[in-house]
Amino acid sequence: MAQQEVQNGGGVEKDAAAPTVSTVTFTAVKPQISVEAPKANDAVQFYKAAFGAEEVGRTMHSKRKAEQETPLILSAELSLAGSTVLVSDLVADSAAPVKSGGSGGVVLCLETEDVAAAIAKAVSAGAVAEGEVVEGEGACCGGSVGKVTDPYGFSWLICSPVKKCATVEA
Amino acid sequence: MAQQEVQNGGGVEKDAAAPTVSTVTFTAVKPQISVEAPKANDAVQFYKAAFGAEEVGRTMHSKRKAEQETPLILSAELSLAGSTVLVSDLVADSAAPVKSGGSGGVVLCLETEDVAAAIAKAVSAGAVAEGEVVEGEGACCGGSVGKVTDPYGFSWLICSPVKKCATVEA
Repeated sequence: MAQQEVQNGGGVEKDAAAPTVSTVTFTAVKPQISVEAPKANDAVQFYKAAFGAEEVGRTMHSKRKAEQETPLILSAELSLAGSTVLVSDLVADSAAPVKSGGSGGVVLCLETEDVAAAIAKAVSAGAVAEGEVVEGEGACCGGSVGKVTDPYGFSWLICSPVKKCATVEA
Repeated sequence: MAQQEVQNGGGVEKDAAAPTVSTVTFTAVKPQISVEAPKANDAVQFYKAAFGAEEVGRTMHSKRKAEQETPLILSAELSLAGSTVLVSDLVADSAAPVKSGGSGGVVLCLETEDVAAAIAKAVSAGAVAEGEVVEGEGACCGGSVGKVTDPYGFSWLICSPVKKCATVEA
């Protein structure tokens, strides 16, 4: 009765896409707030005072940007009401995919062990992949990260789980 | 040794603000995505297909808006990777505070039992309250909701915990 041949509106790529992509599992949703540099640290202090957030990790931009007068935050990880919120300095020349997430400055990061498969699944559902998957510095907290834009204009970061956020490199 | 008189950079209002506001507790952080109406339902279907989200509740706009041809979503509650993401139709004439959250379309909802105290605490830390606290239809899912803008330009909704989201009024 439950035949595969029922009309599902997208039969052409069905065999290729459906079995593979059904295995993608996301482990967390983390809003990332990008603050005009170098105000991310001030914003973190504000979120502590205003909302009772606790900072549980911070990763700085590497020091290879010698022209930086102020150390910039790649990602500060805040714990707030059982959720994680990331706060970053928005750097114009950063390789971070979030820079073009732009307007509003809040992008949702979906964490998964398999970034490539997650992007493929989203694209098969109608999202558009933006740029390449970036490793290391460009990612939320190290690891790898890619970006997709959904059909309604919202950007999503697809990130590998954070492992380096607890390392303060400042 | 732990004296109250240590310099803390904001001593003037200390006695009035600090003891009261320290009691605010947030129970959840929920990103709310506002989609150009009436595409929120399409967006929900997309997030199911692309990210494996599960819809766990939906509240529609009331029917007193007789001119609505399509029933509009006040808030659809999605479960995704252990988090809750809200999806709403963005209605130009809505009373919902999110309408002027605007650019980008993702606003973070902080849930708390005491919306007024939470707003007061945020304001005492430097946020600006936007508009009045709205009850019922204007809130994320019923209850009450207010909005503050932080010093970095981001909007936050301060909401009472969702109780009506599981009620489908369509």
